[in-house]
Amino acid sequence: MSFENYGDDMDPGKRDIMEATHIAVKKHGYSDLTIQHIADEFDRSKALIYYHYDGRDDLLVDFLKYILGGFLATLPEEGSSPREELDDLIELLLPTTVNEEPYRLMLSMFELRMNAPHDEAVREQYLEVEERVRMALEDILRRGIESNEFVDINVEVEAETLLSLLIGIRARRLTVYNPEQSIEPLKATIDAYLDRISTAVE
Amino acid sequence: MSFENYGDDMDPGKRDIMEATHIAVKKHGYSDLTIQHIADEFDRSKALIYYHYDGRDDLLVDFLKYILGGFLATLPEEGSSPREELDDLIELLLPTTVNEEPYRLMLSMFELRMNAPHDEAVREQYLEVEERVRMALEDILRRGIESNEFVDINVEVEAETLLSLLIGIRARRLTVYNPEQSIEPLKATIDAYLDRISTAVE
Repeated sequence: MSFENYGDDMDPGKRDIMEATHIAVKKHGYSDLTIQHIADEFDRSKALIYYHYDGRDDLLVDFLKYILGGFLATLPEEGSSPREELDDLIELLLPTTVNEEPYRLMLSMFELRMNAPHDEAVREQYLEVEERVRMALEDILRRGIESNEFVDINVEVEAETLLSLLIGIRARRLTVYNPEQSIEPLKATIDAYLDRISTAVE
Repeated sequence: MSFENYGDDMDPGKRDIMEATHIAVKKHGYSDLTIQHIADEFDRSKALIYYHYDGRDDLLVDFLKYILGGFLATLPEEGSSPREELDDLIELLLPTTVNEEPYRLMLSMFELRMNAPHDEAVREQYLEVEERVRMALEDILRRGIESNEFVDINVEVEAETLLSLLIGIRARRLTVYNPEQSIEPLKATIDAYLDRISTAVE
């Protein structure tokens, strides 16, 4: 996930904290993360963290916004063919193999999702991300039907299906699969799905 | 979920603890659950809990085994038509609306899933459940093709797809949907899926 100029409009102090948190989460994951871990990745004083945030939970809501915003900023741009855009989006959400640090970040994002039922601010973040991804999928499918890359399907239903399928595979990959394990059998289902909706079976 | 005679072969002391935990989890959920909550549902002494278990986390591994075993015992029996078995299994995993107590139990089971990456015993429980559900789905699909209820599909791939779809919808239902919210839009994708694999479109 590349962040490039993302976060340029943030308060510089907060952005520094977010960047330090990003590094700390990749190193330590979410469950064991402490304010000290974040401060260790940070060349300014720990007091700055407490100036902006009441504590870890308060900070993590902002971090969630930061990281999900960064994710949304990396959604494939219109330009390449709809099928290629869809492949890119799937690869972004479901890399076949994953190294330790991106795995820890993916897992942390999933663990934070589990706070949604208990924290309305967290729920709203994930709702927005799901909505944005669903809309991106609908848009890709719609353009793909127009350009005759995809067969004529119900765009709303298929986008919703694909989103649940992607979230389900990601949930299984992060919970019952070992981090270093390839998820090829799980991705075979996505390939079968793509073959089914594509005009040219590959 | 009915448990009937499930757990009859357990140590009676442990079974009583499991039953009390079952009630306590439905009342309080998992994150706030204490040993005292369990003892409150229990007409024997709290010391009995500590005789069998070191503490909450130790007890919850057994509870997970108990509840997932109970779930596996309720998987539809061969007998009704494959399509009806599939409908029953989907309804079991994805009730359209859900009351407070079953919701808290579903959510607790999902929160416990998040312990899998950190606890091998938990990971193995969920792996086994996924494997058993996947095999049940394969069996239903295979018999449905034989009896001409389902079109000729790749049983392994479709069972895997259906499993990821069910887990994904359940994950979304439990995290971003409100408990009392109907998940009709999410279930419409399952209906579309069933129409696609069925010989008779309903």
